Amino acid sequence: MARATERRRVVRLRGGERGARPDSLAAEEPLEIRIGGEALTVTMRTPGHDFDLVAGFLVGEGLVGATEELAALRYCAGTDAEGANTYNVVDATVRGARPALSAHRNLLTTSACGLCGRDTVDAVRTRSRWDVSTDPLSVPAETLYLLPERLRAAQRTFDSTGGLHAAGLFTADGTLLCAREDVGRHNAVDKVVGWALREGRLPLAGHLLLVSGRASFELTQKAALAGLPLLAAVSAPSSLAADLAEELGLTLVGFLREDTANVYTRPDRIG
Amino acid sequence: MARATERRRVVRLRGGERGARPDSLAAEEPLEIRIGGEALTVTMRTPGHDFDLVAGFLVGEGLVGATEELAALRYCAGTDAEGANTYNVVDATVRGARPALSAHRNLLTTSACGLCGRDTVDAVRTRSRWDVSTDPLSVPAETLYLLPERLRAAQRTFDSTGGLHAAGLFTADGTLLCAREDVGRHNAVDKVVGWALREGRLPLAGHLLLVSGRASFELTQKAALAGLPLLAAVSAPSSLAADLAEELGLTLVGFLREDTANVYTRPDRIG
Repeated sequence: MARATERRRVVRLRGGERGARPDSLAAEEPLEIRIGGEALTVTMRTPGHDFDLVAGFLVGEGLVGATEELAALRYCAGTDAEGANTYNVVDATVRGARPALSAHRNLLTTSACGLCGRDTVDAVRTRSRWDVSTDPLSVPAETLYLLPERLRAAQRTFDSTGGLHAAGLFTADGTLLCAREDVGRHNAVDKVVGWALREGRLPLAGHLLLVSGRASFELTQKAALAGLPLLAAVSAPSSLAADLAEELGLTLVGFLREDTANVYTRPDRIG
Repeated sequence: MARATERRRVVRLRGGERGARPDSLAAEEPLEIRIGGEALTVTMRTPGHDFDLVAGFLVGEGLVGATEELAALRYCAGTDAEGANTYNVVDATVRGARPALSAHRNLLTTSACGLCGRDTVDAVRTRSRWDVSTDPLSVPAETLYLLPERLRAAQRTFDSTGGLHAAGLFTADGTLLCAREDVGRHNAVDKVVGWALREGRLPLAGHLLLVSGRASFELTQKAALAGLPLLAAVSAPSSLAADLAEELGLTLVGFLREDTANVYTRPDRIG
Protein backbone atom coordinates (compact mmCIF):
# COMPACT_ATOMS: atom_id res chain seq x y z
CA MET A 1 0.00 0.00 0.00
CA ALA A 2 1.26 3.45 -0.84
CA ARG A 3 2.84 5.60 1.82
CA ALA A 4 2.22 9.24 2.71
CA THR A 5 5.70 10.28 1.63
CA GLU A 6 8.13 9.22 -1.06
CA ARG A 7 11.89 9.57 -1.13
CA ARG A 8 13.52 11.12 -4.16
CA ARG A 9 16.95 12.37 -5.11
CA VAL A 10 17.03 16.07 -5.85
CA VAL A 11 19.60 18.62 -6.91
CA ARG A 12 19.84 21.24 -4.20
CA LEU A 13 20.89 24.72 -5.34
CA ARG A 14 22.28 27.21 -2.83
CA GLY A 15 23.68 30.34 -4.40
CA GLY A 16 26.25 29.15 -6.91
CA GLU A 17 26.63 25.70 -5.36
CA ARG A 18 24.79 22.53 -6.23
CA GLY A 19 24.67 19.12 -4.64
CA ALA A 20 22.57 16.00 -4.85
CA ARG A 21 20.65 14.87 -1.79
CA PRO A 22 17.62 12.78 -0.88
CA ASP A 23 14.33 14.55 -0.24
CA SER A 24 10.92 13.48 1.03
CA LEU A 25 7.93 14.39 -1.11
CA ALA A 26 4.30 14.31 -0.10
CA ALA A 27 2.74 11.39 -1.92
CA GLU A 28 -0.09 12.18 -4.32
CA GLU A 29 -2.17 9.55 -6.08
CA PRO A 30 -5.61 9.49 -7.68
CA LEU A 31 -8.46 7.98 -5.71
CA GLU A 32 -11.63 7.01 -7.51
CA ILE A 33 -14.73 7.19 -5.33
CA ARG A 34 -17.65 4.94 -6.25
CA ILE A 35 -21.11 4.53 -4.75
CA GLY A 36 -22.67 1.12 -5.25
CA GLY A 37 -20.14 0.39 -7.98
CA GLU A 38 -20.93 3.59 -9.88
CA ALA A 39 -18.01 6.00 -10.29
CA LEU A 40 -18.69 9.38 -8.70
CA THR A 41 -15.44 11.32 -8.85
CA VAL A 42 -11.66 11.10 -8.87
CA THR A 43 -9.67 13.11 -6.35
CA MET A 44 -5.91 13.54 -6.16
CA ARG A 45 -5.00 12.71 -2.59
CA THR A 46 -2.21 11.64 -0.26
CA PRO A 47 -2.72 7.91 0.40
CA GLY A 48 -3.73 6.99 3.93
CA HIS A 49 -7.03 7.31 5.81
CA ASP A 50 -8.77 6.64 2.49
CA PHE A 51 -11.98 5.38 4.10
CA ASP A 52 -12.16 8.55 6.20
CA LEU A 53 -11.61 10.58 3.05
CA VAL A 54 -14.42 8.86 1.19
CA ALA A 55 -16.80 9.07 4.16
CA GLY A 56 -16.05 12.77 4.61
CA PHE A 57 -16.39 13.47 0.91
CA LEU A 58 -19.86 11.91 0.95
CA VAL A 59 -20.81 14.06 3.94
CA GLY A 60 -19.53 17.16 2.17
CA GLU A 61 -21.65 16.36 -0.87
CA GLY A 62 -24.75 15.88 1.24
CA LEU A 63 -24.98 12.20 0.27
CA VAL A 64 -24.42 10.85 3.79
CA GLY A 65 -25.22 12.55 7.08
CA ALA A 66 -25.22 9.89 9.78
CA THR A 67 -23.02 6.91 10.59
CA GLU A 68 -25.74 4.36 9.90
CA GLU A 69 -26.27 5.69 6.38
CA LEU A 70 -22.81 4.46 5.37
CA ALA A 71 -23.21 0.69 5.25
CA ALA A 72 -19.79 -0.30 3.95
CA LEU A 73 -16.52 0.89 2.44
CA ARG A 74 -14.14 -1.35 0.55
CA TYR A 75 -11.17 -1.18 -1.79
CA CYS A 76 -11.97 -2.46 -5.28
CA ALA A 77 -9.70 -5.02 -6.84
CA GLY A 78 -7.20 -3.43 -9.19
CA THR A 79 -3.60 -4.45 -9.56
CA ASP A 80 -0.41 -2.77 -10.62
CA ALA A 81 2.30 -4.29 -12.82
CA GLU A 82 3.52 -6.43 -9.91
CA GLY A 83 0.04 -7.78 -9.19
CA ALA A 84 -0.44 -5.79 -5.99
CA ASN A 85 -3.69 -3.94 -5.25
CA THR A 86 -3.29 -0.26 -6.11
CA TYR A 87 -5.70 0.74 -3.32
CA ASN A 88 -6.80 3.63 -5.52
CA VAL A 89 -10.49 2.79 -5.91
CA VAL A 90 -12.94 2.81 -2.98
CA ASP A 91 -16.57 1.73 -3.29
CA ALA A 92 -19.11 2.96 -0.75
CA THR A 93 -22.40 1.28 0.03
CA VAL A 94 -24.93 3.87 1.14
CA ARG A 95 -28.02 2.84 3.07
CA GLY A 96 -31.50 4.18 2.47
CA ALA A 97 -32.82 6.23 -0.39
CA ARG A 98 -29.77 7.28 -2.36
CA PRO A 99 -30.44 10.96 -2.92
CA ALA A 100 -30.52 11.00 -6.71
CA LEU A 101 -26.89 10.38 -7.54
CA SER A 102 -27.44 11.21 -11.18
CA ALA A 103 -28.98 14.56 -10.32
CA HIS A 104 -26.10 15.11 -7.94
CA ARG A 105 -23.57 14.37 -10.64
CA ASN A 106 -25.34 16.75 -12.96
CA LEU A 107 -25.05 19.42 -10.30
CA LEU A 108 -21.33 18.84 -10.08
CA THR A 109 -20.65 18.89 -13.77
CA THR A 110 -23.35 20.92 -15.46
CA SER A 111 -24.90 22.88 -12.58
CA ALA A 112 -28.09 23.45 -14.63
CA CYS A 113 -28.44 27.14 -15.33
CA GLY A 114 -28.95 28.20 -11.74
CA LEU A 115 -25.78 30.24 -11.91
CA CYS A 116 -27.47 32.78 -14.13
CA GLY A 117 -29.87 33.44 -11.29
CA ARG A 118 -29.84 36.09 -8.69
CA ASP A 119 -28.10 34.21 -5.90
CA THR A 120 -24.75 32.79 -6.85
CA VAL A 121 -24.28 31.23 -3.43
CA ASP A 122 -27.45 29.20 -3.87
CA ALA A 123 -26.33 27.83 -7.21
CA VAL A 124 -23.34 25.94 -5.85
CA ARG A 125 -24.89 25.20 -2.53
CA THR A 126 -25.50 21.85 -0.91
CA ARG A 127 -28.11 22.14 1.80
CA SER A 128 -27.07 20.97 5.26
CA ARG A 129 -29.40 19.03 7.48
CA TRP A 130 -27.95 20.74 10.56
CA ASP A 131 -28.74 24.26 11.74
CA VAL A 132 -25.45 25.53 13.15
CA SER A 133 -26.81 29.03 13.80
CA THR A 134 -28.34 27.97 17.12
CA ASP A 135 -25.21 26.19 18.41
CA PRO A 136 -24.48 27.69 21.88
CA LEU A 137 -20.69 27.22 21.51
CA SER A 138 -18.61 29.76 23.42
CA VAL A 139 -14.81 29.81 23.10
CA PRO A 140 -12.37 32.10 24.90
CA ALA A 141 -9.99 33.88 22.52
CA GLU A 142 -7.12 32.40 24.54
CA THR A 143 -8.27 28.90 23.58
CA LEU A 144 -8.42 29.85 19.90
CA TYR A 145 -4.83 31.10 20.02
CA LEU A 146 -3.64 27.65 21.16
CA LEU A 147 -5.05 25.73 18.21
CA PRO A 148 -2.51 26.40 15.43
CA GLU A 149 0.43 25.26 17.54
CA ARG A 150 -1.44 22.13 18.62
CA LEU A 151 -2.22 21.27 15.01
CA ARG A 152 1.39 21.95 13.97
CA ALA A 153 2.64 19.69 16.77
CA ALA A 154 0.45 16.88 15.46
CA GLN A 155 1.74 17.50 11.94
CA ARG A 156 5.38 17.45 12.91
CA THR A 157 5.17 13.83 13.96
CA PHE A 158 4.40 12.62 10.48
CA ASP A 159 5.19 15.43 8.08
CA SER A 160 8.68 15.96 6.83
CA THR A 161 7.79 17.16 3.38
CA GLY A 162 6.64 20.75 3.88
CA GLY A 163 4.02 20.00 1.28
CA LEU A 164 0.85 19.09 3.11
CA HIS A 165 -2.33 20.88 4.09
CA ALA A 166 -3.68 20.02 7.52
CA ALA A 167 -7.05 20.06 9.23
CA GLY A 168 -7.71 19.57 12.94
CA LEU A 169 -10.87 18.90 14.90
CA PHE A 170 -10.98 20.31 18.43
CA THR A 171 -13.36 20.29 21.36
CA ALA A 172 -14.50 23.65 22.74
CA ASP A 173 -11.77 23.52 25.40
CA GLY A 174 -9.08 23.18 22.72
CA THR A 175 -8.41 19.44 22.92
CA LEU A 176 -7.30 18.03 19.56
CA LEU A 177 -9.47 15.05 18.61
CA CYS A 178 -8.28 14.32 15.08
CA ALA A 179 -5.63 15.77 12.76
CA ARG A 180 -5.24 14.83 9.11
CA GLU A 181 -2.91 15.90 6.32
CA ASP A 182 -3.18 15.79 2.55
CA VAL A 183 -1.79 17.41 -0.57
CA GLY A 184 -5.36 18.62 -1.13
CA ARG A 185 -6.87 21.06 1.33
CA HIS A 186 -10.37 19.70 0.83
CA ASN A 187 -9.14 16.16 1.35
CA ALA A 188 -7.64 17.00 4.75
CA VAL A 189 -11.04 18.31 5.87
CA ASP A 190 -12.85 15.34 4.34
CA LYS A 191 -10.56 12.97 6.25
CA VAL A 192 -11.36 14.69 9.54
CA VAL A 193 -15.12 14.79 8.90
CA GLY A 194 -15.10 11.20 7.67
CA TRP A 195 -13.28 10.12 10.82
CA ALA A 196 -16.00 11.82 12.87
CA LEU A 197 -18.77 10.16 10.86
CA ARG A 198 -17.25 6.73 11.25
CA GLU A 199 -16.79 7.36 15.00
CA GLY A 200 -20.49 8.19 15.30
CA ARG A 201 -19.80 11.83 16.21
CA LEU A 202 -21.89 13.67 13.62
CA PRO A 203 -23.19 16.34 13.86
CA LEU A 204 -20.10 18.02 15.33
CA ALA A 205 -22.09 20.48 17.45
CA GLY A 206 -19.90 22.41 19.89
CA HIS A 207 -16.68 21.55 18.05
CA LEU A 208 -14.06 23.64 16.22
CA LEU A 209 -12.34 22.95 12.90
CA LEU A 210 -8.97 24.50 12.07
CA VAL A 211 -7.43 24.45 8.58
CA SER A 212 -3.79 25.27 7.87
CA GLY A 213 -4.42 27.44 4.82
CA ARG A 214 -7.23 29.57 3.54
CA ALA A 215 -10.96 29.27 4.12
CA SER A 216 -12.84 28.93 0.85
CA PHE A 217 -16.53 28.66 0.14
CA GLU A 218 -16.22 24.90 -0.21
CA LEU A 219 -14.45 24.40 3.11
CA THR A 220 -17.07 26.53 4.85
CA GLN A 221 -19.77 24.42 3.28
CA LYS A 222 -18.03 21.21 4.35
CA ALA A 223 -17.90 22.52 7.93
CA ALA A 224 -21.62 23.32 7.88
CA LEU A 225 -22.51 19.92 6.43
CA ALA A 226 -20.65 18.30 9.35
CA GLY A 227 -22.61 20.45 11.80
CA LEU A 228 -19.59 22.48 12.93
CA PRO A 229 -20.41 25.91 14.42
CA LEU A 230 -16.87 27.31 14.00
CA LEU A 231 -14.29 27.21 11.23
CA ALA A 232 -10.87 28.79 11.80
CA ALA A 233 -8.13 29.27 9.21
CA VAL A 234 -4.51 30.22 9.63
CA SER A 235 -4.76 32.32 6.48
CA ALA A 236 -7.41 34.42 4.75
CA PRO A 237 -11.03 33.55 3.99
CA SER A 238 -12.65 34.36 0.66
CA SER A 239 -15.59 36.72 0.31
CA LEU A 240 -17.96 33.88 -0.48
CA ALA A 241 -16.78 31.91 2.55
CA ALA A 242 -17.74 34.88 4.73
CA ASP A 243 -21.06 35.31 2.89
CA LEU A 244 -21.96 31.66 3.41
CA ALA A 245 -20.85 31.68 7.06
CA GLU A 246 -23.00 34.73 7.70
CA GLU A 247 -26.01 33.17 6.05
CA LEU A 248 -25.61 29.92 8.01
CA GLY A 249 -24.76 31.50 11.35
CA LEU A 250 -21.35 29.82 11.44
CA THR A 251 -18.43 31.55 13.17
CA LEU A 252 -15.64 32.15 10.65
CA VAL A 253 -12.16 33.01 11.99
CA GLY A 254 -9.24 33.93 9.74
CA PHE A 255 -5.57 34.85 10.16
CA LEU A 256 -5.40 32.88 13.41
CA ARG A 257 -1.72 33.39 14.30
CA GLU A 258 0.04 33.78 17.63
CA ASP A 259 -2.40 35.80 19.77
CA THR A 260 -4.33 37.50 16.98
CA ALA A 261 -7.31 36.59 14.81
CA ASN A 262 -9.99 38.12 12.61
CA VAL A 263 -13.57 37.09 13.27
CA TYR A 264 -15.66 37.56 10.14
CA THR A 265 -19.02 36.27 11.33
CA ARG A 266 -20.79 35.50 14.61
CA PRO A 267 -18.13 36.97 16.93
CA ASP A 268 -20.58 36.46 19.81
CA ARG A 269 -19.21 32.92 20.16
CA ILE A 270 -15.71 34.20 21.03
CA GLY A 271 -15.53 35.09 24.74
CA MET B 1 -19.13 43.52 -12.69
CA ALA B 2 -17.69 41.91 -9.61
CA ARG B 3 -14.37 43.10 -8.26
CA ALA B 4 -11.34 41.10 -7.17
CA THR B 5 -11.71 42.15 -3.54
CA GLU B 6 -14.60 42.89 -1.24
CA ARG B 7 -14.66 45.06 1.87
CA ARG B 8 -16.10 43.67 5.05
CA ARG B 9 -16.24 44.65 8.71
CA VAL B 10 -14.45 42.19 10.96
CA VAL B 11 -13.79 41.84 14.67
CA ARG B 12 -10.04 41.93 15.21
CA LEU B 13 -8.76 40.01 18.25
CA ARG B 14 -5.34 40.80 19.67
CA GLY B 15 -4.61 39.11 22.97
CA GLY B 16 -7.47 40.10 25.26
CA GLU B 17 -8.50 43.10 23.17
CA ARG B 18 -11.06 43.26 20.42
CA GLY B 19 -12.04 45.98 18.00
CA ALA B 20 -14.07 46.30 14.82
CA ARG B 21 -12.33 47.30 11.61
CA PRO B 22 -12.78 47.02 7.85
CA ASP B 23 -10.94 44.26 6.01
CA SER B 24 -10.44 43.35 2.35
CA LEU B 25 -11.33 39.81 1.32
CA ALA B 26 -10.38 38.07 -1.90
CA ALA B 27 -13.56 37.78 -3.93
CA GLU B 28 -14.72 34.28 -4.80
CA GLU B 29 -17.63 33.55 -7.12
CA PRO B 30 -18.69 30.55 -9.20
CA LEU B 31 -17.96 30.63 -12.93
CA GLU B 32 -19.78 28.22 -15.21
CA ILE B 33 -17.78 27.28 -18.31
CA ARG B 34 -19.74 26.21 -21.40
CA ILE B 35 -18.63 25.02 -24.81
CA GLY B 36 -21.08 25.69 -27.61
CA GLY B 37 -23.80 26.30 -25.04
CA GLU B 38 -23.19 23.02 -23.26
CA ALA B 39 -22.16 23.28 -19.61
CA LEU B 40 -18.74 21.76 -18.96
CA THR B 41 -17.83 22.65 -15.38
CA VAL B 42 -18.20 25.17 -12.58
CA THR B 43 -15.12 26.60 -10.94
CA MET B 44 -14.91 28.84 -7.89
CA ARG B 45 -12.76 31.77 -8.94
CA THR B 46 -11.82 35.36 -8.23
CA PRO B 47 -13.65 37.48 -10.82
CA GLY B 48 -11.45 39.19 -13.37
CA HIS B 49 -9.60 37.88 -16.46
CA ASP B 50 -12.48 35.44 -16.91
CA PHE B 51 -11.84 34.96 -20.63
CA ASP B 52 -8.20 34.13 -19.90
CA LEU B 53 -9.37 31.70 -17.24
CA VAL B 54 -11.72 29.91 -19.62
CA ALA B 55 -9.15 29.82 -22.42
CA GLY B 56 -6.50 28.44 -20.08
CA PHE B 57 -8.89 25.90 -18.61
CA LEU B 58 -9.63 24.59 -22.11
CA VAL B 59 -5.90 24.31 -22.83
CA GLY B 60 -5.38 22.45 -19.55
CA GLU B 61 -8.10 19.96 -20.47
CA GLY B 62 -6.58 19.36 -23.89
CA LEU B 63 -9.65 20.80 -25.65
CA VAL B 64 -7.82 23.75 -27.24
CA GLY B 65 -4.16 23.99 -28.16
CA ALA B 66 -3.78 26.91 -30.55
CA THR B 67 -5.19 30.42 -30.73
CA GLU B 68 -7.18 29.77 -33.90
CA GLU B 69 -9.01 26.85 -32.28
CA LEU B 70 -10.78 29.23 -29.90
CA ALA B 71 -13.22 31.08 -32.15
CA ALA B 72 -15.08 33.13 -29.54
CA LEU B 73 -15.69 33.75 -25.87
CA ARG B 74 -18.72 35.57 -24.51
CA TYR B 75 -20.58 36.13 -21.26
CA CYS B 76 -24.03 34.55 -21.26
CA ALA B 77 -27.00 36.63 -20.26
CA GLY B 78 -27.96 36.14 -16.63
CA THR B 79 -29.09 38.83 -14.27
CA ASP B 80 -29.02 39.38 -10.56
CA ALA B 81 -31.81 40.85 -8.45
CA GLU B 82 -31.00 44.34 -9.72
CA GLY B 83 -31.14 43.29 -13.37
CA ALA B 84 -27.35 43.46 -13.88
CA ASN B 85 -25.45 40.70 -15.70
CA THR B 86 -23.82 38.40 -13.14
CA TYR B 87 -20.89 37.73 -15.50
CA ASN B 88 -20.67 34.25 -14.00
CA VAL B 89 -21.27 32.18 -17.13
CA VAL B 90 -18.87 32.12 -20.10
CA ASP B 91 -19.56 30.28 -23.33
CA ALA B 92 -16.66 29.26 -25.58
CA THR B 93 -16.93 28.52 -29.29
CA VAL B 94 -14.27 26.01 -30.27
CA ARG B 95 -13.25 25.64 -33.90
CA GLY B 96 -12.61 22.35 -35.64
CA ALA B 97 -13.43 18.85 -34.51
CA ARG B 98 -14.48 19.17 -30.91
CA PRO B 99 -12.53 16.38 -29.26
CA ALA B 100 -15.42 14.33 -27.91
CA LEU B 101 -16.70 16.55 -25.15
CA SER B 102 -18.93 13.83 -23.80
CA ALA B 103 -16.03 11.41 -23.53
CA HIS B 104 -14.06 14.18 -21.92
CA ARG B 105 -16.76 14.80 -19.36
CA ASN B 106 -16.90 11.12 -18.58
CA LEU B 107 -13.20 11.18 -17.97
CA LEU B 108 -13.61 14.02 -15.50
CA THR B 109 -16.48 12.54 -13.56
CA THR B 110 -16.34 8.79 -13.93
CA SER B 111 -12.81 8.16 -15.19
CA ALA B 112 -13.87 4.78 -16.57
CA CYS B 113 -12.03 2.09 -14.68
CA GLY B 114 -8.57 3.03 -15.87
CA LEU B 115 -7.55 3.76 -12.33
CA CYS B 116 -7.58 0.09 -11.47
CA GLY B 117 -4.85 -0.36 -14.04
CA ARG B 118 -1.15 -0.54 -13.63
CA ASP B 119 -0.28 3.06 -14.28
CA THR B 120 -2.13 5.52 -12.09
CA VAL B 121 -0.47 8.49 -13.78
CA ASP B 122 -1.90 7.42 -17.12
CA ALA B 123 -5.42 7.20 -15.79
CA VAL B 124 -5.73 10.87 -14.92
CA ARG B 125 -3.55 12.05 -17.72
CA THR B 126 -4.40 14.39 -20.57
CA ARG B 127 -1.95 13.96 -23.42
CA SER B 128 -0.10 17.07 -24.51
CA ARG B 129 0.51 17.85 -28.15
CA TRP B 130 3.88 19.41 -27.29
CA ASP B 131 7.08 17.52 -26.49
CA VAL B 132 8.76 19.63 -23.82
CA SER B 133 11.57 17.12 -23.28
CA THR B 134 13.54 18.47 -26.24
CA ASP B 135 13.21 22.15 -25.25
CA PRO B 136 16.77 23.57 -25.19
CA LEU B 137 15.96 26.05 -22.39
CA SER B 138 18.93 26.95 -20.18
CA VAL B 139 18.48 29.17 -17.12
CA PRO B 140 21.19 30.36 -14.72
CA ALA B 141 20.34 29.64 -11.08
CA GLU B 142 20.77 33.36 -10.41
CA THR B 143 17.88 34.10 -12.77
CA LEU B 144 15.67 31.56 -11.01
CA TYR B 145 16.35 33.21 -7.66
CA LEU B 146 14.94 36.52 -8.95
CA LEU B 147 11.53 35.16 -9.95
CA PRO B 148 9.67 34.97 -6.61
CA GLU B 149 10.38 38.61 -5.73
CA ARG B 150 9.33 39.73 -9.20
CA LEU B 151 6.05 37.84 -8.91
CA ARG B 152 5.47 39.21 -5.41
CA ALA B 153 6.11 42.76 -6.66
CA ALA B 154 3.45 42.28 -9.33
CA GLN B 155 1.07 40.91 -6.70
CA ARG B 156 1.56 43.77 -4.30
CA THR B 157 0.04 46.22 -6.73
CA PHE B 158 -3.34 44.56 -6.63
CA ASP B 159 -3.42 42.26 -3.67
CA SER B 160 -4.30 43.56 -0.24
CA THR B 161 -6.12 40.51 0.98
CA GLY B 162 -3.40 38.00 1.79
CA GLY B 163 -5.69 35.39 0.33
CA LEU B 164 -4.67 34.85 -3.26
CA HIS B 165 -2.58 32.32 -5.12
CA ALA B 166 -0.40 33.72 -7.89
CA ALA B 167 1.14 32.44 -11.10
CA GLY B 168 3.71 34.23 -13.24
CA LEU B 169 4.98 33.60 -16.75
CA PHE B 170 8.62 34.57 -17.41
CA THR B 171 11.00 34.57 -20.33
CA ALA B 172 14.27 32.67 -19.97
CA ASP B 173 16.06 35.86 -18.93
CA GLY B 174 13.63 36.40 -16.05
CA THR B 175 11.35 39.02 -17.56
CA LEU B 176 7.81 38.79 -16.19
CA LEU B 177 5.31 38.60 -19.06
CA CYS B 178 2.06 37.94 -17.22
CA ALA B 179 1.03 37.60 -13.56
CA ARG B 180 -2.39 36.50 -12.39
CA GLU B 181 -4.00 35.93 -9.00
CA ASP B 182 -6.95 33.86 -7.85
CA VAL B 183 -8.40 32.19 -4.77
CA GLY B 184 -7.86 28.95 -6.69
CA ARG B 185 -4.31 27.88 -7.49
CA HIS B 186 -5.35 26.15 -10.70
CA ASN B 187 -7.27 29.21 -11.80
CA ALA B 188 -4.22 31.46 -11.47
CA VAL B 189 -2.31 29.13 -13.81
CA ASP B 190 -5.27 28.86 -16.19
CA LYS B 191 -5.46 32.66 -16.38
CA VAL B 192 -1.78 32.89 -17.33
CA VAL B 193 -1.97 30.10 -19.91
CA GLY B 194 -5.21 31.52 -21.31
CA TRP B 195 -3.58 34.94 -21.66
CA ALA B 196 -0.76 33.30 -23.62
CA LEU B 197 -3.18 31.41 -25.86
CA ARG B 198 -5.16 34.56 -26.64
CA GLU B 199 -1.90 36.42 -27.34
CA GLY B 200 -0.91 33.76 -29.87
CA ARG B 201 2.04 32.61 -27.78
CA LEU B 202 1.35 28.88 -27.45
CA PRO B 203 3.32 26.66 -27.15
CA LEU B 204 5.33 28.43 -24.45
CA ALA B 205 8.64 26.88 -25.47
CA GLY B 206 11.61 28.43 -23.71
CA HIS B 207 9.45 30.02 -20.98
CA LEU B 208 9.21 29.55 -17.20
CA LEU B 209 6.12 29.32 -15.01
CA LEU B 210 6.27 30.17 -11.30
CA VAL B 211 3.47 29.36 -8.85
CA SER B 212 3.21 30.84 -5.37
CA GLY B 213 2.28 27.65 -3.58
CA ARG B 214 2.83 23.96 -4.14
CA ALA B 215 3.32 22.06 -7.37
CA SER B 216 0.69 19.36 -7.77
CA PHE B 217 0.21 16.78 -10.49
CA GLU B 218 -2.48 18.91 -12.09
CA LEU B 219 -0.34 22.06 -12.22
CA THR B 220 2.51 20.08 -13.77
CA GLN B 221 0.11 18.74 -16.36
CA LYS B 222 -1.21 22.23 -17.11
CA ALA B 223 2.38 23.44 -17.65
CA ALA B 224 3.06 20.59 -20.06
CA LEU B 225 -0.17 21.20 -22.00
CA ALA B 226 0.94 24.81 -22.50
CA GLY B 227 4.32 23.62 -23.80
CA LEU B 228 6.29 24.97 -20.83
CA PRO B 229 9.66 23.28 -20.22
CA LEU B 230 10.03 24.52 -16.61
CA LEU B 231 7.66 24.79 -13.65
CA ALA B 232 8.91 26.38 -10.43
CA ALA B 233 7.06 26.50 -7.12
CA VAL B 234 7.75 28.51 -3.98
CA SER B 235 6.71 25.51 -1.91
CA ALA B 236 6.88 21.72 -2.21
CA PRO B 237 5.94 19.53 -5.15
CA SER B 238 4.01 16.30 -4.72
CA SER B 239 5.43 12.90 -5.62
CA LEU B 240 3.15 12.58 -8.64
CA ALA B 241 4.15 16.03 -9.88
CA ALA B 242 7.77 14.85 -9.87
CA ASP B 243 6.84 11.54 -11.52
CA LEU B 244 4.96 13.29 -14.31
CA ALA B 245 7.71 15.90 -14.81
CA GLU B 246 10.27 13.13 -15.09
CA GLU B 247 8.19 11.24 -17.62
CA LEU B 248 7.60 14.35 -19.73
CA GLY B 249 11.13 15.75 -19.49
CA LEU B 250 9.92 18.92 -17.80
CA THR B 251 12.17 20.70 -15.29
CA LEU B 252 10.46 20.84 -11.89
CA VAL B 253 11.82 23.26 -9.29
CA GLY B 254 10.50 23.45 -5.72
CA PHE B 255 11.20 25.47 -2.57
CA LEU B 256 12.43 28.40 -4.68
CA ARG B 257 13.22 30.92 -1.94
CA GLU B 258 15.93 33.55 -1.62
CA ASP B 259 18.98 31.97 -3.24
CA THR B 260 18.03 28.32 -2.79
CA ALA B 261 15.99 25.81 -4.74
CA ASN B 262 15.43 22.09 -5.17
CA VAL B 263 15.49 20.73 -8.71
CA TYR B 264 13.51 17.49 -8.89
CA THR B 265 13.80 16.70 -12.58
CA ARG B 266 15.93 17.69 -15.57
CA PRO B 267 18.49 19.78 -13.63
CA ASP B 268 20.53 20.00 -16.84
CA ARG B 269 18.47 23.06 -17.77
CA ILE B 270 19.74 25.02 -14.74
CA GLY B 271 23.12 26.56 -15.50
